[in-house]
Amino acid sequence: MKKKTTIHDISRALKINSSTVSRALNNSPRVSQKTKDLIQKKAAELGYQKNILASNLRTNKTNTIGIIVPRISRNFFSSVISGIEETAYKAGYNVVIGQSLESFEREQQLVSTLLSNRVDGLLISVSMGTTNYDHLHNFKNNGGPIVFFDRPIVMGDTPNIGIDDFDASYKATEHLIKNGCKDIVHFSGFQKIELYKQRMQGYITALKNHNIPIREEYILESQLSEADGIELAKKVLSLPKVDGIYSSNDTAAISAIQFFKKEGLKIPDDIAIVGFNNDTISAVIEPGLTTVNQPDVEMGIIASSLLIELIKKTIESPAEHSKTLGTELIIRQSSQKRK
Amino acid sequence: MKKKTTIHDISRALKINSSTVSRALNNSPRVSQKTKDLIQKKAAELGYQKNILASNLRTNKTNTIGIIVPRISRNFFSSVISGIEETAYKAGYNVVIGQSLESFEREQQLVSTLLSNRVDGLLISVSMGTTNYDHLHNFKNNGGPIVFFDRPIVMGDTPNIGIDDFDASYKATEHLIKNGCKDIVHFSGFQKIELYKQRMQGYITALKNHNIPIREEYILESQLSEADGIELAKKVLSLPKVDGIYSSNDTAAISAIQFFKKEGLKIPDDIAIVGFNNDTISAVIEPGLTTVNQPDVEMGIIASSLLIELIKKTIESPAEHSKTLGTELIIRQSSQKRK
Repeated sequence: MKKKTTIHDISRALKINSSTVSRALNNSPRVSQKTKDLIQKKAAELGYQKNILASNLRTNKTNTIGIIVPRISRNFFSSVISGIEETAYKAGYNVVIGQSLESFEREQQLVSTLLSNRVDGLLISVSMGTTNYDHLHNFKNNGGPIVFFDRPIVMGDTPNIGIDDFDASYKATEHLIKNGCKDIVHFSGFQKIELYKQRMQGYITALKNHNIPIREEYILESQLSEADGIELAKKVLSLPKVDGIYSSNDTAAISAIQFFKKEGLKIPDDIAIVGFNNDTISAVIEPGLTTVNQPDVEMGIIASSLLIELIKKTIESPAEHSKTLGTELIIRQSSQKRK
Repeated sequence: MKKKTTIHDISRALKINSSTVSRALNNSPRVSQKTKDLIQKKAAELGYQKNILASNLRTNKTNTIGIIVPRISRNFFSSVISGIEETAYKAGYNVVIGQSLESFEREQQLVSTLLSNRVDGLLISVSMGTTNYDHLHNFKNNGGPIVFFDRPIVMGDTPNIGIDDFDASYKATEHLIKNGCKDIVHFSGFQKIELYKQRMQGYITALKNHNIPIREEYILESQLSEADGIELAKKVLSLPKVDGIYSSNDTAAISAIQFFKKEGLKIPDDIAIVGFNNDTISAVIEPGLTTVNQPDVEMGIIASSLLIELIKKTIESPAEHSKTLGTELIIRQSSQKRK
């Protein structure tokens, strides 16, 4: 095992005094960026490893942000994460990511791990399985600030960065109605998630405003996975009459389209379909999937900028910085019936 | 701020003595799983937060595994990660993930962050930008064991879990030749990555063995991103004659197919295409993309099982546990010319 590199080794190598080296490595504003860059480069070269464990006990700062998302493989989340990473990286923060896989227990363990690792703050889209927020209160009390994104949560003064799900959903459903659909099925996520509640309300309100009856059996709840999409499509075929589907995500919409195509149905003429998220795949499938585009990267940038300000304590009244971002309906072939 | 929950609070609530509680929370084999479950449940309920920072200084164990991948948004990596998570979770480990975005600097910072967080071991697919392994030596010397997956690295006795890239590539190229292709372009990744070197060698050897001349201008190197795919497709159209493409990933292959379709070319009749990775999207695009399927989830399971054994020191001679997994060519329409 090599002897560990110390601050003094860097100091000697660069002929810069060791207190400046120490300040630079702690990202002190008293050292110029140029000198910091020089010192950091040399530190990396010499394999210098800060004893953050001990230094944490003193300063309680790690310059690390934690992210917890339900599933990193979903396009939407990986795009939000890329927005977070860009912002965090520029501000001198590293990012560690955990996925809850929609499990409350895993989310609790991840929050506990990140708390133990002394991340400076947490960005989280809570799991579908989450039934209380004790673990998040605990993080706030003993760790650092939290910013919710995507799935809105009411928890004291903790801010939310999200979209207007009701409005996006209303527009998506109305688009189907304007394209001649009357018997519209809704693929919904679980209603304990506020976001899916809002999306369902948007669907219901659009039908109501166009004098279309709401039928309970036309609202199908699931986790909206690929496998769920196939099950949902089968259920659709067992309903008396369906000419349109509005799905709360693209994953389920796309696997339903593939199932319908195999069954010989024509999309959109037999069934028009609108999804949600504008996943890459929605532009690749034929017919192209009409879908709601969320400003995912922007959501990541805004949420992480806010979190960093909260960590640095440069702003007060966090809840006042909650933000609702605009969405856009991307119209492709899957919803445009030949009349 | 609430008063922190202590081991004694849990002990009182359950009427179990506090040394048993402490042992259970440290996952000691001296406590039955049933009692552990009971204690852990109550600990979560009461919002108990282990002072891992102090406890780390004593035991140097966090029951956390670090993963670093180039990009979480790639199907292949998110599938490997899901294999890792399942295995780790069952074995009582949490998982934190970082993405290098193919940057050496970010990878160095992530390794340093994970080292500071005292993760017990590291699973890594190194970035394309990585030029030396000092940061990884440093992790091994001061942190814990490493297992490489996907992109093979020669570094002392550190094991690699990967596939036979040469063999997979040879078969993919030969498949194009057997389908009548003679002028085959290869979309390659950067040659400093051993995996892409092997894939190119497989392509070259297949051509040689079928007496097809190797032309340098038919080998196109890039990061194989979506944007690269379009640039590569444009270059293909500027070459004298091309009737087949073997791409080192699906991302570039798919964006090339979309470009060719817009230009009015017929796939596979004008140009047959084979990709690599079997991304979800490869089955959705029309025509379906012929591609190499890697056992991604299995790779994650094997790599993490090995890492956990190394952490627990239950095996010796790590390098002897390196493993090469089999691949499969999934034949879809994109490569089958009508003769």
